[in-house]
Amino acid sequence: MRTVKWDNQSQSVTMIDQRLLPGEFKLVTYTDYEELAKAIVDMVVRGAPAIGATAGFGLALAARHAKVTDRGALIDELKRASATLLATRPTAVNLAWAIQRILRMVEQSHGDLEEIRELVVNEAQIIAEEDVKINIRMAQHGAALIDNGDTIIHHCNTGALATVDYGTALGVIRMAHEQGKRVHVLVDETRPRLQGARLTAWELQEYGISYEIISDNAAGYFLHTNQVQKVIFGADRVAANGDVVNKIGSYMLALAANDNDIPVYSVMPTSTIDLSLAKGSLIPIEDRPADEVLNLNRDGHPIAPAGAKARNPAFDITPNKLLTAIVTENGVVYPPFLDTLAQVVQSGI
Amino acid sequence: MRTVKWDNQSQSVTMIDQRLLPGEFKLVTYTDYEELAKAIVDMVVRGAPAIGATAGFGLALAARHAKVTDRGALIDELKRASATLLATRPTAVNLAWAIQRILRMVEQSHGDLEEIRELVVNEAQIIAEEDVKINIRMAQHGAALIDNGDTIIHHCNTGALATVDYGTALGVIRMAHEQGKRVHVLVDETRPRLQGARLTAWELQEYGISYEIISDNAAGYFLHTNQVQKVIFGADRVAANGDVVNKIGSYMLALAANDNDIPVYSVMPTSTIDLSLAKGSLIPIEDRPADEVLNLNRDGHPIAPAGAKARNPAFDITPNKLLTAIVTENGVVYPPFLDTLAQVVQSGI
Repeated sequence: MRTVKWDNQSQSVTMIDQRLLPGEFKLVTYTDYEELAKAIVDMVVRGAPAIGATAGFGLALAARHAKVTDRGALIDELKRASATLLATRPTAVNLAWAIQRILRMVEQSHGDLEEIRELVVNEAQIIAEEDVKINIRMAQHGAALIDNGDTIIHHCNTGALATVDYGTALGVIRMAHEQGKRVHVLVDETRPRLQGARLTAWELQEYGISYEIISDNAAGYFLHTNQVQKVIFGADRVAANGDVVNKIGSYMLALAANDNDIPVYSVMPTSTIDLSLAKGSLIPIEDRPADEVLNLNRDGHPIAPAGAKARNPAFDITPNKLLTAIVTENGVVYPPFLDTLAQVVQSGI
Repeated sequence: MRTVKWDNQSQSVTMIDQRLLPGEFKLVTYTDYEELAKAIVDMVVRGAPAIGATAGFGLALAARHAKVTDRGALIDELKRASATLLATRPTAVNLAWAIQRILRMVEQSHGDLEEIRELVVNEAQIIAEEDVKINIRMAQHGAALIDNGDTIIHHCNTGALATVDYGTALGVIRMAHEQGKRVHVLVDETRPRLQGARLTAWELQEYGISYEIISDNAAGYFLHTNQVQKVIFGADRVAANGDVVNKIGSYMLALAANDNDIPVYSVMPTSTIDLSLAKGSLIPIEDRPADEVLNLNRDGHPIAPAGAKARNPAFDITPNKLLTAIVTENGVVYPPFLDTLAQVVQSGI
């Protein structure tokens, strides 16, 4: 089962409701792009590559279900849908990347109404299919960095659930495991949304990979006591200089790895790299609702006194100096990232 | 209300059940030292100074309720009780410190059965009373380091609830506030037991001090974006060289502060300083039950897949190089801590 999937017969998008895992595996289906946009905001689906593909399918919904009678009106509707989808989450650039890729194709087309509907749906499906292939190539490049017997700290969820399928950083671990390497994963639970404890643990259990969940606070202890050989995480947006914006907590994890000379790898498709931004501090950081901090697992069980306030930035910046290498579908690159990142993006398929 | 209190009439110890806060404020009373020891293990009471005082009262319970008819049998019973109390939690040295202080006094006494019962109860009460006075002095020394307008990140709970009253690191913040300084606290929620979100937030609300709760992961973001002026936490045991063993997560927090040139202060009574251990890596680190990680707030709401395993070290080591200063009741000391810590311990009352 894919994280997000287009169905041609019913002209709809079906996704796994990731808010309910691991307790419940439930599929949800959308035919309205505005409802899909709301699902992105609510994190029914999350993970930079997955929301990129989902945004593409959002445009496919808009294209298929727009009540318009001519080409111009459809393009207007697609632009409205793009604005709505773009506004859902500001940090991951994959969303904008997928939308722009489709809009560019629409603008370059001379097709009529039905041809443009078809073109949008096709391109959204191609983006989703490509994501899976890209992840496999990324995982193959990354798996070469993993040694037999490694204990690896992994942050957030970057597996099949964060992508259309297979995963980015977790894909690297999965590939190493499939290659017969013995690995053990210390799973950062990843507060506040607990993507590690809920989703990564669930995936690792499915794949039969050895793991233990730890509180995010404990990562430093395991690094400091020589129990970890690698630190690996994904990315939501990477600046031209290699600063990586990723799930909140990645920065402190990378600091602790560096303090103990443990390599740190960030893994992402080149669609996550934003060469237009010179450095990480220019990347917008999403503020999420305080409720995610104050109600553990958002299940209506408050952990704080009534009336307590909270701050909830969803991402932080890991400065390029803390990264050993960046893994993409086009290969692994090393510092100075300002040079090597541009090369690896341009060497793309 | 004190965190832990002796009642002479009923010969019992009453404590706030900290596992239930902030939802419920409930007092629990013990007359049996073995039940009290179990309460320490279960973290009905926690915080290095508080469990030191509680262990003292545990000996008071043993002294008062021992069914013995002579002095020798009482001393044997006190030694058994000491072993039970010492085994409850291995990291904080205050527990051993309080027990040894009372046992030494018993060994030096020539009193009869009743006199020794009396002596143990008195000394336990003196230890508890001293803790409050020590905390006030510590807070006065520490408050001088806090500037008007400071935003401070605080880890775990080090307030009245972690001591007999007033607190250590949180006592410093409280004193600065009482002196009229405007402070704002970013409260690390402190997984896995959430002492920050549950206890520190509750105390700050009581004191009328401005605060916001953050996930532990978010501390790095706020430090990295110039929103924080000080980092402050307590200690469970300090080695002779100034390595501080404190609640899990302190190490990564101190790393992030150092990476952004923000001062880091650790605050503790000199009874927390263990000059017999040369460095932090010699301090035993308690492994707590996996259940604390897998069941958020231990309320029977699992956050992980069925069958998931977890690791749960309760403390980590912040190397002395990451500390700006150490605050004790005898004053503030700066590096090189190997010299200054021994001096500040010896300059004690």
